[in-house]
Amino acid sequence: MLTVDVCYSPELLHLYNLQGRVVVVVDILRATSSMVTAFAHGVEKMVPVSKLQECMAYRKKGFLTAAERDGQKAEGFDLGNSPFSYMDESIQGKAIAITTTNGTQAIRLSISADTVVIGSFLNISAVARFVQMQQKSVIIVCAAWKGKFNLEDTLFAGALIEKLGSEYEPENDATLGANVIWEAAKADRRAFLENSSHVKRLARLDIVKDVDFCLQDDVYDVVPVWQGAYLTKAMPVLVD
Amino acid sequence: MLTVDVCYSPELLHLYNLQGRVVVVVDILRATSSMVTAFAHGVEKMVPVSKLQECMAYRKKGFLTAAERDGQKAEGFDLGNSPFSYMDESIQGKAIAITTTNGTQAIRLSISADTVVIGSFLNISAVARFVQMQQKSVIIVCAAWKGKFNLEDTLFAGALIEKLGSEYEPENDATLGANVIWEAAKADRRAFLENSSHVKRLARLDIVKDVDFCLQDDVYDVVPVWQGAYLTKAMPVLVD
Repeated sequence: MLTVDVCYSPELLHLYNLQGRVVVVVDILRATSSMVTAFAHGVEKMVPVSKLQECMAYRKKGFLTAAERDGQKAEGFDLGNSPFSYMDESIQGKAIAITTTNGTQAIRLSISADTVVIGSFLNISAVARFVQMQQKSVIIVCAAWKGKFNLEDTLFAGALIEKLGSEYEPENDATLGANVIWEAAKADRRAFLENSSHVKRLARLDIVKDVDFCLQDDVYDVVPVWQGAYLTKAMPVLVD
Repeated sequence: MLTVDVCYSPELLHLYNLQGRVVVVVDILRATSSMVTAFAHGVEKMVPVSKLQECMAYRKKGFLTAAERDGQKAEGFDLGNSPFSYMDESIQGKAIAITTTNGTQAIRLSISADTVVIGSFLNISAVARFVQMQQKSVIIVCAAWKGKFNLEDTLFAGALIEKLGSEYEPENDATLGANVIWEAAKADRRAFLENSSHVKRLARLDIVKDVDFCLQDDVYDVVPVWQGAYLTKAMPVLVD
């Protein structure tokens, strides 16, 4: 029997056994949404790193550098964490080193899994198909906000579980919680998130259009996956 | 402005600032439900401890000893974790040392707060009144299951937030999540929990009557609070 579980915070990830599982990492606002956008616009590989300094060091190796802290682009880096900054032709064929407040840490902590997939609403159907083809149990890892539960990543978890379908049995209460929250939100996810702490935080930073963009389903059909030392696009054969 | 926040797991508690706050610790199935039952039946004080050995050592000091691991009473101890075992006249005026899989650890980790209160559905209205009298921001700490999110403690969090009312502003997404889950469950909490991992676990152990008992509102009006080195009843003046 295949199972699906949800981890609400990277701080809880040590409680989960990742061996033999597919991990889907999600940071809707905005790291994984931006990564998916980048790969959809021709980026060849991305290296998620934890520290700003570490990220900058990749410039010497010919990488573009992307860094966000507390919702804002860090000074001196080429790119921030807005999906719109990854829609430029200039990034085609490039390698990018990226560090963000939550998302890149969640990816680094997940890489002991058999397969690590980058999920977002923007590529949710492609991720669901890719995961189903693996025929392994799944753990959805929410990037959260500085370790604390967030609603938008939980919504995605609930939405992905729905797409995966009844072949996957819920493994823990976190899965059931995500289902309930997604049910309550799905009719109007934007309105549902209006009171969430992260949406309020981004509204203060005046990046409302990023939020609207990141909440759309299936804008892209790319599936970024972890490939030993970096993220790259899964083989096109895997996407309809 | 008073705020209310929810911590879904003791493993996340280090992310919260407990100073100046009232913490309500909850382990519906069954540690805090049993503690409330014990105080309602005349127990004078309870010492929550982490380890079985530590608990047993209290016997020499004249304490009754209570221990549960993985849902079952540990061998050689006087009491387990069923609320029904705390309804006996023999416990009146007694001191009890208690250790459970999740609840007692959550209490130990919370004691740096200004005030620590033991919450359960069994005393939810009394807890709400007590908390409102403190006029401090509140953190509801869910005992969870071995560090992982559970539904029943989250339900209680949502129910308590509703009782606290609009004077308390939600501080984080975990609060909003608990509200949504409680809204979905409140019409029939027992049916809602039918698929939860802990209820299934307890059903396997044939203690369904404990679950039914622990899901009832306001059976007792006692409010156990942390008093420097042990739990005891809050002054009766605080309860209507």
